[in-house]
Amino acid sequence: MTRRDALWSALASAAASTQSVSSFSHIEKWSVFEAQFPGPSSGTPYIDIEFGADFQFEHRKVSVDGFYDGDGVYRVRFMPDSEGEWLFTTRSNRPELHGKTGRFLCVPPAKGNHGPVAVRSTWHFGYADGTPYLPFGTTCYAWTHQGDSLEEQTLNTLQQSPFNKIRMCVFPKSYAFNRNEPPAYAFARTADSNDYTHVNPIFFQRLEKRVTQLMQAGIQADLILFHPYDRWGYSNMGAENDDRYLRYVVARLAAYRNVWWSMANEWDFVKTKTLSDWDRFFRIVQQSDPYGRLRSIHNGAVLYDHGKTWVTHASIQGDDFDKIPGWLDAYRKPVVIDECKYEGNIQQRWGNLSAREMTRRFWIGTLAGVYVGHGETYMNDQDVLWWSKGGVLHGESAPRIAFLRKLLESNAPGGLTPMSKPYYPAAMKTGEYYLSYFDYHQPVTNQFELPDGASFRADVIDPWNMKITPVDGLQQGKVQSKLPGKPYMAVQFRKA
Amino acid sequence: MTRRDALWSALASAAASTQSVSSFSHIEKWSVFEAQFPGPSSGTPYIDIEFGADFQFEHRKVSVDGFYDGDGVYRVRFMPDSEGEWLFTTRSNRPELHGKTGRFLCVPPAKGNHGPVAVRSTWHFGYADGTPYLPFGTTCYAWTHQGDSLEEQTLNTLQQSPFNKIRMCVFPKSYAFNRNEPPAYAFARTADSNDYTHVNPIFFQRLEKRVTQLMQAGIQADLILFHPYDRWGYSNMGAENDDRYLRYVVARLAAYRNVWWSMANEWDFVKTKTLSDWDRFFRIVQQSDPYGRLRSIHNGAVLYDHGKTWVTHASIQGDDFDKIPGWLDAYRKPVVIDECKYEGNIQQRWGNLSAREMTRRFWIGTLAGVYVGHGETYMNDQDVLWWSKGGVLHGESAPRIAFLRKLLESNAPGGLTPMSKPYYPAAMKTGEYYLSYFDYHQPVTNQFELPDGASFRADVIDPWNMKITPVDGLQQGKVQSKLPGKPYMAVQFRKA
Repeated sequence: MTRRDALWSALASAAASTQSVSSFSHIEKWSVFEAQFPGPSSGTPYIDIEFGADFQFEHRKVSVDGFYDGDGVYRVRFMPDSEGEWLFTTRSNRPELHGKTGRFLCVPPAKGNHGPVAVRSTWHFGYADGTPYLPFGTTCYAWTHQGDSLEEQTLNTLQQSPFNKIRMCVFPKSYAFNRNEPPAYAFARTADSNDYTHVNPIFFQRLEKRVTQLMQAGIQADLILFHPYDRWGYSNMGAENDDRYLRYVVARLAAYRNVWWSMANEWDFVKTKTLSDWDRFFRIVQQSDPYGRLRSIHNGAVLYDHGKTWVTHASIQGDDFDKIPGWLDAYRKPVVIDECKYEGNIQQRWGNLSAREMTRRFWIGTLAGVYVGHGETYMNDQDVLWWSKGGVLHGESAPRIAFLRKLLESNAPGGLTPMSKPYYPAAMKTGEYYLSYFDYHQPVTNQFELPDGASFRADVIDPWNMKITPVDGLQQGKVQSKLPGKPYMAVQFRKA
Repeated sequence: MTRRDALWSALASAAASTQSVSSFSHIEKWSVFEAQFPGPSSGTPYIDIEFGADFQFEHRKVSVDGFYDGDGVYRVRFMPDSEGEWLFTTRSNRPELHGKTGRFLCVPPAKGNHGPVAVRSTWHFGYADGTPYLPFGTTCYAWTHQGDSLEEQTLNTLQQSPFNKIRMCVFPKSYAFNRNEPPAYAFARTADSNDYTHVNPIFFQRLEKRVTQLMQAGIQADLILFHPYDRWGYSNMGAENDDRYLRYVVARLAAYRNVWWSMANEWDFVKTKTLSDWDRFFRIVQQSDPYGRLRSIHNGAVLYDHGKTWVTHASIQGDDFDKIPGWLDAYRKPVVIDECKYEGNIQQRWGNLSAREMTRRFWIGTLAGVYVGHGETYMNDQDVLWWSKGGVLHGESAPRIAFLRKLLESNAPGGLTPMSKPYYPAAMKTGEYYLSYFDYHQPVTNQFELPDGASFRADVIDPWNMKITPVDGLQQGKVQSKLPGKPYMAVQFRKA
């Protein structure tokens, strides 16, 4: 019997012999434990009532904030990261919410639960359980503000797609192709006026439902906390309301293992905030979130300084891929180009890349050592464009992105290291895997230099037609390879 | 009777009544007048004998150098630029070549003879007679060193092609795919040694024959005077021999109206010469050439300062098209990107662009306000690659370049002015013609702002399929145009 099994067995016996079953539940590691307590419902609990809990595992204590969920209900959520018994005690400025205790048993994760994603090996990511994670993200800014029918269609599309991350806004969006009212507002609302002293729990419950569904589908929720495309007032609440909102969101959502924090979409386009506001937001999120979830901020025209300590990875809008080596050097963090324009056909210049160009950008960026994000903006009769509302995919790049994802997960699950020497985009898993992409070049032959002392199997890859054609025999050292003489081909060498 | 007709008539009578018919010929304006004289054949005439002539038209005198053409024959060539009687008197350091006189009648140019090309309107070119000239060049570095059969095939290909300029080396080339010996050497040669005191007239006669044929075909000969790919010694002759060679080439070839001088291919790769050598070469050519033919220098990795006064236009190897606006501003001269890599399929990274990418580069560059040059490097059984040896074209970009050339000659024969405001590449003939190219974007609609007070006819252009589809009706002001939603489309608006 291992130490873990022994502990579990002991705790299970303890559970059977106690009466306080209400708070003694079995919680999967890296899943959400939640406890709720009755408390005041009058006045302005969102403003006045402090509530949280300290969770204890052996000698370690983790303090988390709770939140008011309406109707006199106060909740605290927690994601345990160690198997065994956890105890907790609430704390509050109201006696009826203070000093409540409880416990739960953290049991091993179920299949498919790999824990949260964090930075690994400087420029890459990985799950907490050691499972590789290569982000292949997409963007549906306002998909959780469309009503159940469309939202469920979006979820269904995502589950069939290659995307394992989605950029999405907490607040609704007002923009071209986005003129509809959301099903709920974040705060009590009368006519066109928000009451920032009363949060609307329904708004956040809707969001949490979708985040949970994404979690179950293995999709990271890159939650965008502020953005400029607003007609309701959420981009201009004032510093005090901004900060309280941030703490509230973190209290509600940090326990979901698939949450990433994005301070903003296009931070520099939010004219109501200064650079020091964004710095402060980062610090608030960093201090409030006991799990250290990934933190980033997405630019409009001007990059935020992703070198700042509270930024875990660069989230970049841009398509000047020549800057990638500079970014990797400067930040020494993962770089995610999560907006390199969109596949589509709309008039807006950022929304009409051909599918081939989007596919090409995934290849160019991937081989340069960054992670590229997808988005789609095709006109359609329903006026539902994926990039914002979700719905279904109309384009042709997604299957090619799936092909690329599978290629990397099979061959370089820890991420690729870009190779600076070759002329063509090329990257490797040192000593084991080498991948070159020829872009608009169409050589009939090319020389590769494989590392000494190993043999490799070579394949010619057609990224658009998603075909892998093995080359006969084993390759060693300086190899002169035959190529198809067509543009947009790739070659891989896998250690035999 | 016009003044010109009167003069011509008078001169014709004079010709009929004189006995000195030998030097009294009728010479088309902008064509080559040549006179020859016997002189010394022993010793080193190439070194020792100074010979030239002063040509006089009314009150204007033009001094030109003559040259030794072997077998005791001395020639002087001259391109008259004014119709009427020209007189000349030779000058030499040898009495038998000094003070010889002659005259000829310069008559109107024949159809197709538009005179030499010069810079027009800062960033463009034009023929001397006012006919527009838009350079659509190609490159066959060593085509005149391949023997008559292949050279005639190259000429034939050029005549069927869209190309009205060719980059070509005076000296033979030693490089990959170029290992053959030339049919003739520039100087007397024994074993592997050149005698720089004895020029080989046959070498230059071969070259002049090809330059003449290009002239007859309406193709500018962009003559490259030095280059690095040499195994015969021509890149390392020493300053004295370099300078004498330059004066000799100018004396022989400057009279051909289709000659352009390119000091070098890849000047910075010629390790035997310094920057001051290249400056001196420019000055020698400028001083020796009485016609002021176009002068340029083509880079390897480092641009020469094309702002120097003796440079008439920038000749650039490069494919960073984002630099074009900077170059146009800095130089205020025409910019010719005459090497943006080659369409082809060879291993060398500069020689395997797809035909679509080459076509795209022509469009991008043209709309940015420069002139793009073609080249082709397809493997073939004959080992004859167009970029160097000539022969036939194997690629698919040439017809698309022909299509673009025709489009421009029909609509903006004086050249296009780039438009900096639109997002997509766009250029215009102000007030009359507007051309936009959408590259890898595929909008289904786009807004254009046409100038007030005029109506325009619109066409959707498919540059690859070479189709022009008219849009119904007349367009005015702000126009919302339907587009096909396919990548690589263009739109033009022509003033009605």
